[in-house]
Amino acid sequence: MVDKIVVRKEIMDIKPYVPGKPIDEVKRELGLKEVIKLASNENPLGPSPMAIDKMKEAITKVNIYPDGNVHNLREKLSKSLGIEASQLIFGNGSDELLVLLAQAFIKPDDEVVMADITFSEYEFATKIMGGKIIEVPLKNNTHDLEAMLAAVTDKTKMVFICNPNNPTGTIVGRREVEGFLAKVPEDVIVVFDEAYYEYVDNSDYPQTINYLNDYDNVIILRTFSKIYGLGGLRLGYGISSSKLISYIDRVRQPFNINSIAQVAAEASLDDQDHVSKSLEYNRQGKEYLYQEFERLGLEYVPTETNFILIDLGRSNQEVFQKMLKKGIIIRSLASYGYETEARVTIGLPEENKKMIKALEEVLS
Amino acid sequence: MVDKIVVRKEIMDIKPYVPGKPIDEVKRELGLKEVIKLASNENPLGPSPMAIDKMKEAITKVNIYPDGNVHNLREKLSKSLGIEASQLIFGNGSDELLVLLAQAFIKPDDEVVMADITFSEYEFATKIMGGKIIEVPLKNNTHDLEAMLAAVTDKTKMVFICNPNNPTGTIVGRREVEGFLAKVPEDVIVVFDEAYYEYVDNSDYPQTINYLNDYDNVIILRTFSKIYGLGGLRLGYGISSSKLISYIDRVRQPFNINSIAQVAAEASLDDQDHVSKSLEYNRQGKEYLYQEFERLGLEYVPTETNFILIDLGRSNQEVFQKMLKKGIIIRSLASYGYETEARVTIGLPEENKKMIKALEEVLS
Repeated sequence: MVDKIVVRKEIMDIKPYVPGKPIDEVKRELGLKEVIKLASNENPLGPSPMAIDKMKEAITKVNIYPDGNVHNLREKLSKSLGIEASQLIFGNGSDELLVLLAQAFIKPDDEVVMADITFSEYEFATKIMGGKIIEVPLKNNTHDLEAMLAAVTDKTKMVFICNPNNPTGTIVGRREVEGFLAKVPEDVIVVFDEAYYEYVDNSDYPQTINYLNDYDNVIILRTFSKIYGLGGLRLGYGISSSKLISYIDRVRQPFNINSIAQVAAEASLDDQDHVSKSLEYNRQGKEYLYQEFERLGLEYVPTETNFILIDLGRSNQEVFQKMLKKGIIIRSLASYGYETEARVTIGLPEENKKMIKALEEVLS
Repeated sequence: MVDKIVVRKEIMDIKPYVPGKPIDEVKRELGLKEVIKLASNENPLGPSPMAIDKMKEAITKVNIYPDGNVHNLREKLSKSLGIEASQLIFGNGSDELLVLLAQAFIKPDDEVVMADITFSEYEFATKIMGGKIIEVPLKNNTHDLEAMLAAVTDKTKMVFICNPNNPTGTIVGRREVEGFLAKVPEDVIVVFDEAYYEYVDNSDYPQTINYLNDYDNVIILRTFSKIYGLGGLRLGYGISSSKLISYIDRVRQPFNINSIAQVAAEASLDDQDHVSKSLEYNRQGKEYLYQEFERLGLEYVPTETNFILIDLGRSNQEVFQKMLKKGIIIRSLASYGYETEARVTIGLPEENKKMIKALEEVLS
């Protein structure tokens, strides 16, 4: 049956994505009533109340197709970033932007350089288009830009720098990034994935938008899924030169951004109080978790994000399963090749407390 | 600037999609207060009230990532269709499913057979993957399945049958479809795009789901964007054998369906009263418009959908612009190569009346 149909060989070794388990699924499978998910780096405060108000209006008109040009959000966001409206492209989450980038630029056997432990969708997008993955090991849980530069050949089409890096939470600093950009050939596209941009609290973090003036090969990806609390709506954006954006726009489906995401994102940009409050909760949660991990004797990687990589000191899959039975979803990093590490999202104070309590029980 | 960056040559001759103009854009550009859009075949009654209720709950939780497996909707829809849950795949609109199909199956120089006048996104998706478009002229505004079969060669990978066809509104009947399926080689994927399935009022319309038992090379695409009134949320689905679906699923991004679309679609399936009411409005609107077109001496193609192809007897672009100034958006079909034809969506009684009044003024 269907064996006659020939599938593109490139897609046959795509590894399936391992998502954080949905709350409903865990409730269903384990018969639990209360489940806390600290697995997908969502903003635990929820979306902005101003966004909720706008969504409430918009849901009555979802029979109308979305604005394919994302006009209103594009105007507002480009002004707030100090760039031209034509320097922006929107995606159904940054996930879609990664695939659009691949479709626009990656030919079979083009090489794409990325860290060995980083966001898995770079590999996914590259493989769809038949590109060749060149993995460069992290150094101290951080992108090793010198080694990545050394890995660039005349076949290299694209380099992915996840900054801060998911799942380690670390950043590369201004000096390394500027050194890298100065040396990388200008026909190599350098993608900075800054999904956790707003969480970074480090003066050494590069403001990559400034590099757009000097480098036409730079693309920056950001998202409304993290601090803006709109992960369920799927909205990421890319920033680059107008010309590069126009190439990527060629492969974009005309109505890729749903209308609810458009109004919610616009309102979220206006609600900087919600952003500040989210940052404050994250800061406090981070301090609490650092202390508790230390108390439990667990090593962790200091983070610039809303998640923390910890070393459980024993099988991450086993701990994950035991935590699940207690109604706490964390992210085992087994799919990254880690055996004892896990990633936990910084939640609300009460959620953090329950997670630590469960973890202490599981580990004892 | 950026001339050093090599773009995939395949994407350079993609024609940009020409969407129906958004209402806000027309208001902005022409300084109009009231604008009626009969250009994008949206359900003029809006989404189901039951869907609105469910969306109202869901918008407060959009910080949580969507269920990547679309579990609840998948269960409900597969039961109502009488198929396995694994025979379904969901897309960010059918638009995305077309691209996923292309990514899963189309290699450079594979031939893809489609009508010369049909939904433009088949060409878009094919070109992204470097496939070769084989266009077969419509016959009496209808897919000519005999000629399409004759166009199939040993290089043919896929055939698109838009049934009913957009923008002509016509269907191909059971006998032609069954004859086609019996003769087309089984390594050729036959895609039935049934976006307007629910509107068809013709006993000769094939129930293609029945063919899945005998043909593993059949894929059916349907959508929540049309009669279910959820175009703004982007949700289409594909039905095929579990094995073919599993191939397409390899290239699907893990969270491609936003969470609002998931709950809205589920509620919409429960609200068959809204579907019936929508059909009744469409039937009455269709009769009214037929009469008025006849009164104005305009030829039209009898439709099985919620839109009608009319021959304006003069430049469609000119009429489109004049209608626009009167606050009525119709779809000039200039982008399809038509010079005098336009497509109008069947709206609410008041909208249809205003459209006819404006059209009469423009044409007189």
